[in-house]
Amino acid sequence: MKVVLIGAGNLGFHLGQKLYAVGFDVLQVYSRKIANANNLADRIGAKAISSLHKISSEAELYIIAVQDNAIKEVAFQLAKFSLNDKLIVHTSGATHSDDLREAGLNRYGVFYPLQTFSKSKTPDFETIPFCLFANNISDLKLLKQIASKISNSIFEISDEQRATLHVAAVFVNNFSNHLYHVAEQLLNTKELGLDLLLPLIQETVDKIKVASPHEMQTGPAIRMDDKTIQEHLIMLENYPSYQQLYQLLTKSIQESR
Amino acid sequence: MKVVLIGAGNLGFHLGQKLYAVGFDVLQVYSRKIANANNLADRIGAKAISSLHKISSEAELYIIAVQDNAIKEVAFQLAKFSLNDKLIVHTSGATHSDDLREAGLNRYGVFYPLQTFSKSKTPDFETIPFCLFANNISDLKLLKQIASKISNSIFEISDEQRATLHVAAVFVNNFSNHLYHVAEQLLNTKELGLDLLLPLIQETVDKIKVASPHEMQTGPAIRMDDKTIQEHLIMLENYPSYQQLYQLLTKSIQESR
Repeated sequence: MKVVLIGAGNLGFHLGQKLYAVGFDVLQVYSRKIANANNLADRIGAKAISSLHKISSEAELYIIAVQDNAIKEVAFQLAKFSLNDKLIVHTSGATHSDDLREAGLNRYGVFYPLQTFSKSKTPDFETIPFCLFANNISDLKLLKQIASKISNSIFEISDEQRATLHVAAVFVNNFSNHLYHVAEQLLNTKELGLDLLLPLIQETVDKIKVASPHEMQTGPAIRMDDKTIQEHLIMLENYPSYQQLYQLLTKSIQESR
Repeated sequence: MKVVLIGAGNLGFHLGQKLYAVGFDVLQVYSRKIANANNLADRIGAKAISSLHKISSEAELYIIAVQDNAIKEVAFQLAKFSLNDKLIVHTSGATHSDDLREAGLNRYGVFYPLQTFSKSKTPDFETIPFCLFANNISDLKLLKQIASKISNSIFEISDEQRATLHVAAVFVNNFSNHLYHVAEQLLNTKELGLDLLLPLIQETVDKIKVASPHEMQTGPAIRMDDKTIQEHLIMLENYPSYQQLYQLLTKSIQESR
């Protein structure tokens, strides 16, 4: 199956290589920066392009893996270059599929791997949930077939569900990471490092693999231990922003009891 | 070496078995509930007691592994039963070592394994950071020797440092877990489960094992993506408490830029 990959960022870089590894024929890799396109294209026997008017009309699937704010414009370009009747998907958690329809595409969908990607780390695609959507049943079936060559975790997800997944992902990824940052800042004031907390952080995650976080909640907030909470708030007096976080998270935990 | 273990909760249950496994002679296990004491004592060739006046004076180390709010009272009892000159440690992250001194003990310390324990899961003690303190150098040396038979991760930690570790642990363990709960609640409203986010949650943790969370921060907050932030806040309108959390965490991330 012939594919064109539009975008060679963190996701594109890894997805392109995975598609190639499982036997897809990636015809072209597009990036605004030709060096980025080349870097990926050279690894997977594809042609690098840096302008969309060179895009091939030979592929059966076009994957848009550019930044969220550029998706609609790319889709417009693809429509302009007469790819309206090709299957075109984006890979974004935050972008409505309507953006593709409004750009003038007739066959469109979403091919969203629910994971965070960094260039230096090869992801384990088999375990990544792929959230799929298409505006017609036969294309959805096709996307499922494609995704199942890459991952063992395939889900049909509506735009509305995906929007909720994206907010939830912000909570568990961006916000948790910020809490790790807060912890590191606090520890650094006492010449301690975050490494001391890594086993605890891992165990917190291991626990929710076997039981719901609601059951697993521990600590001063859930046991209404006002003495400890007050001591902690006093210790955080020099960090008003962290103190506020502590208070609000404690309140939210207590409301969930 | 002879040890008495006071407390047979989650920590006591696992620590007692580990001490036994690496060759310590656990003389007695105390619990207010004799059944709990028996359950552990039977596994490690110890005698179960449910009243502190039966406590042996033969041990070289007494480990208090009871709930935080009971530590001082237990220490008073031990002083009353003439164990003032024995080495007595507590295992708490949140309790000042002064509580042991004020109870009348002369040789006291802290033997704090920085991990969360649940009865059903055998912890991997080798990787758990043990935070040690003693009020004199020879006892500190002794605690280090003992801990090094259990764990490869030994730290000398002052009361002040331990207090900061404990607040930081609340952020990374209790508060992160609450964010997982929030995510699960949001997903459930759309007939989705938290399992979809588990690979992302694990990856978030894997990343901070190789780089600081500050470097690893991603998402709408750090990239000042007001459009996405506003969309998320609108989606959270029916969950004012989660909306508040979203706003405050976003603000805190942006202040850390």
